[in-house]
Amino acid sequence: MINTKFSYPEVFSFIDEKNVKAQNEKLKSAYKTLCSRNGKGNDFLGWLDLPAEFDTNFSQRIKNCADKLAAQSEVVVVIGIGGSYLGARAVIEALQHPFNSLVGGSGRPSVLFAGNSISEDYMHALLDVLEKKDYSIIVISKSGTTTEPAIAFRILKEHCEKKYGKDSAKERIVAITDAARGALKKLATDEGYDTFVIPDSVGGRYSVLTPVGLLPIAVAGFDIDKLVRGAVEMREYLLQNDSFESNIAMQYALLRYLLYSEKNKKIELLVAYEPCLSYFVEWYKQLFGESEGKENKAIFPAGAIFSTDLHSLGQYIQEGERHLMETVISVKNSKNKVAIPYDEKDADGLNYLQKKSLTEINLTAEKGTRLAHLDGGVPNFQISIPAINESSLGELIYFFEFSCALGGYLLDVNPFNQPGVEAYKKNMFKLLGKPEK
Amino acid sequence: MINTKFSYPEVFSFIDEKNVKAQNEKLKSAYKTLCSRNGKGNDFLGWLDLPAEFDTNFSQRIKNCADKLAAQSEVVVVIGIGGSYLGARAVIEALQHPFNSLVGGSGRPSVLFAGNSISEDYMHALLDVLEKKDYSIIVISKSGTTTEPAIAFRILKEHCEKKYGKDSAKERIVAITDAARGALKKLATDEGYDTFVIPDSVGGRYSVLTPVGLLPIAVAGFDIDKLVRGAVEMREYLLQNDSFESNIAMQYALLRYLLYSEKNKKIELLVAYEPCLSYFVEWYKQLFGESEGKENKAIFPAGAIFSTDLHSLGQYIQEGERHLMETVISVKNSKNKVAIPYDEKDADGLNYLQKKSLTEINLTAEKGTRLAHLDGGVPNFQISIPAINESSLGELIYFFEFSCALGGYLLDVNPFNQPGVEAYKKNMFKLLGKPEK
Repeated sequence: MINTKFSYPEVFSFIDEKNVKAQNEKLKSAYKTLCSRNGKGNDFLGWLDLPAEFDTNFSQRIKNCADKLAAQSEVVVVIGIGGSYLGARAVIEALQHPFNSLVGGSGRPSVLFAGNSISEDYMHALLDVLEKKDYSIIVISKSGTTTEPAIAFRILKEHCEKKYGKDSAKERIVAITDAARGALKKLATDEGYDTFVIPDSVGGRYSVLTPVGLLPIAVAGFDIDKLVRGAVEMREYLLQNDSFESNIAMQYALLRYLLYSEKNKKIELLVAYEPCLSYFVEWYKQLFGESEGKENKAIFPAGAIFSTDLHSLGQYIQEGERHLMETVISVKNSKNKVAIPYDEKDADGLNYLQKKSLTEINLTAEKGTRLAHLDGGVPNFQISIPAINESSLGELIYFFEFSCALGGYLLDVNPFNQPGVEAYKKNMFKLLGKPEK
Repeated sequence: MINTKFSYPEVFSFIDEKNVKAQNEKLKSAYKTLCSRNGKGNDFLGWLDLPAEFDTNFSQRIKNCADKLAAQSEVVVVIGIGGSYLGARAVIEALQHPFNSLVGGSGRPSVLFAGNSISEDYMHALLDVLEKKDYSIIVISKSGTTTEPAIAFRILKEHCEKKYGKDSAKERIVAITDAARGALKKLATDEGYDTFVIPDSVGGRYSVLTPVGLLPIAVAGFDIDKLVRGAVEMREYLLQNDSFESNIAMQYALLRYLLYSEKNKKIELLVAYEPCLSYFVEWYKQLFGESEGKENKAIFPAGAIFSTDLHSLGQYIQEGERHLMETVISVKNSKNKVAIPYDEKDADGLNYLQKKSLTEINLTAEKGTRLAHLDGGVPNFQISIPAINESSLGELIYFFEFSCALGGYLLDVNPFNQPGVEAYKKNMFKLLGKPEK
C-alpha cells in the first residue's frame, strides 16, 4: 500500500474537465505502451522492474561493501555526474543531519561528491580534505571515459595510491560500471577493485535504485531495504491501476501535459517546504528535463524551496508572466519537535502562535500559498507524504520515474535517450584536440 | 577601472541589430530616469550611492563588531529571509572553503543561516549544533515581525539566554534593523543589543552592501573594503557612460529585454561553471524575479551550475522548447592549481590532457557549450571576471543591480516594490488566526 497522495485542487478552473476525457485514450495508450514495453526507448526500461528484482543477497552485498568502506573512512568520495550523482545526493541530503560535520558526524563517513564539474578550486579543496581524512572512493561511470568523472578519478586515484600505497588503495576503491565493456570495467578488473554493475537497460537518470544510488546511500548509513520497499509498493500500485481515476501517476502526467499543451504553462516549479529536499528537486529537474526536453518541446523544469523562495521567486510566481504551474511536495510530519515558546513581552507579536509546532505553521504557510498562487493564476498540484524517510522517498522516486515516462510518451518523444547532451562534448573535444579513435 | 567584461556573441543572429537603434531612446530614457532618480520607486534608490557613501569609520565599526562576534563564537547564526539572507550567503559561499567544517575551519566562525524557512527539522538540527558550539546571533529584519525570522529569533534568543544567561546573551546578539521604528528596533533598544541600521531607501534585495550583507561577510573573514571597492569602480563606470556602446549594463538590459519582448525568450538561465557561485545565482534570481516579475510580465529567472547541469538541464537547453536565453558568468582564473597527471596506461584516454589545468579544460567546456547552445537556438551572454574574489564580486553585485533596475524600467514596472509577496502572508495570517492590530 502506498502512503503518497496526489491532489489537483481547482485544476479544472484552468483546464476544461472534458479535455481529460478527450485525451483519455491517449493517456491509456501511453500507459499501455509503457507497461507492455513496446514504445520508444524500450531497451531502457530496466528501471520499471528494478524494485521487484532487488533481493536479500544483492542488498547484503551492497551493505557489506558499504560497511567496509565506512569502517576504514572518515570521508567517502562519490565520483559521478548526472544520473550517477544526483540520485544518491538527493536521498542522502534528504535524510542526513544538515550540519553533519559540525556535530561530529553520524558515526558514518561524510559522503562528498566529485567529478560533477571541472572546477579547479573545488578539486583543490577536496584534496585538502583528503590530505587530512581517511577516505575511500566510489567511482561511477558506465564507460569510464566521461570527461568530468574520468578527470576526477585520475586525480584521486593518484592521490589515494600515494597516500595509502598501491595495494591498500585497491581496498579503498569501488567501481560501479558496465558489466563487461568500457575503460573503467577493464581498469577495475586489472586493478582488482570491488565492482558493482550498472545494468544496460537502466539509463543514468533512472539509476538511483541500482548500486549507483544504493551504495552511497548505504555508506551514509541509510536503510536501502526500506527505500526499495517504498518503490516496490509504488510499483505494484501503479501497475495494478490503469485508469486516470485510479492511478495518481496517470493523473499527474496527463494534467501537467494538458496545462502545457493547451494552456501554455511552459514552466513547472517543483516546490518543497523542507530545505533538505533541495537535491531531490535537482534530481527531478534532471529526470524530467532530460526525458522530455527534445524535439523543441516540453515543460521547463524549475525548482524552489519555500518559504525561503517566496521571498525570492514569490513575487514573480504571484504576478509575473503567467506561464507557470506548481507541484508541491507536502510533508505532513517532522522527525523532531520544536514549538514556539511563550514570551511575556511579546515584542514580536508571535504569542498567538505559542505552543504551535513549526510544522503546523509551515503547513499553514503551504496552504495559504496554494490559495494565493491559485488566485494569481498558477495551477497547483500537491504530492503528500507522511514524513521524509527511506520509504516515502522510495515511493516518490518510483512515482516520478513512472510519471515522467508517461509524460514523454504523451509528448510523443523517447523519454529514455538524451541525444542533445553530446553537442557540447563534441565541441569541447574538438577544441581540446582529443585524438580520434 | 572595472575588470568585468560583457559580450554578446552572435546575439544579432537572433535579433535584428536595427532593433537596438529603434529602442535606443527607450534605453536612454530608462538610464536617465534611473540616474536622475525620478522614476517609479525612486524612494528606494539608496543602493545607487551606497558604495560611494561607505567610509573608513563605518567599515571599522562593522569589522570591530565582526571581530568581537568571531572571538567569542565557533558559529554565528544569521537570521534573515529574502534579501536579508541571500546576499551574505552568496558572497560567503563564493569565497569560503567548500568543506570548511571538515578541514577544521578557517580560524573564523562557521556562518549558518536561520529564519529563511519554517522547517522544524532544520531548526532542531540547528539547535543541536548550538548545544555543542559557542555561538552568537545576527538578527536581520526591518520590522522584526516578518514571520520566518521572528520565529527563529524567538526560539534562538530563548536558547541563547538559557545557555549563557540573560546578561551574557546580550553580548552575543546583534540586530540589523530600522533606524527608529519596528518591533526589533524597540527590542534591541530595550535589551541593549549592538545594532546596525537598514537604510529606509534600500530594499531587501538591494541590501547586500549595507550591514545586512557586510556584517556576516566580515564575520566569515572576508574583506568588505575590497568588496565595496569593486562596487565603487563599477558604479563610477556605469554612471560615467550613458550609451549602449559604452555601458555594459545598458547592453545587457536592452538585449535581454529585446530577446524577451521580440523573440519570446521567456526564461533566462544564469550559469556559472564554479559550484561556489550557486548562491550567487540564487541572489540573482531574487534580484531579477522580484524586481521585474509583475503586471503579468518578465523573464523567468532560472539558474544552473555547469558542467554539472549539462548532464541534467543540458538536454532541454539543447533541444527542448526554444524559450531560453543563457547568461554565463565566466571566471578566467582559479585560486589554486590542479593539473591532470600523466598516466602510463592511459586507460581513460586522458593523456591528451596531461599537464593542462582543470581551469583550462573548464573554460574549453564553456566555449564548446556556448557554441553548441548557439547552434541549438539559445542566445548567450557572457559576463567575464578575472577571478572570484571580493573585488570582482563587488563589481558583479553592482552590475546586476544596475542592469536589473534598467530592466524594470524597460518593462515599465516599478523595480523596487514587491506587492505580490504579501498574498501568501495574508492567507497564512488568516489561517493562523493572527489577531488584527
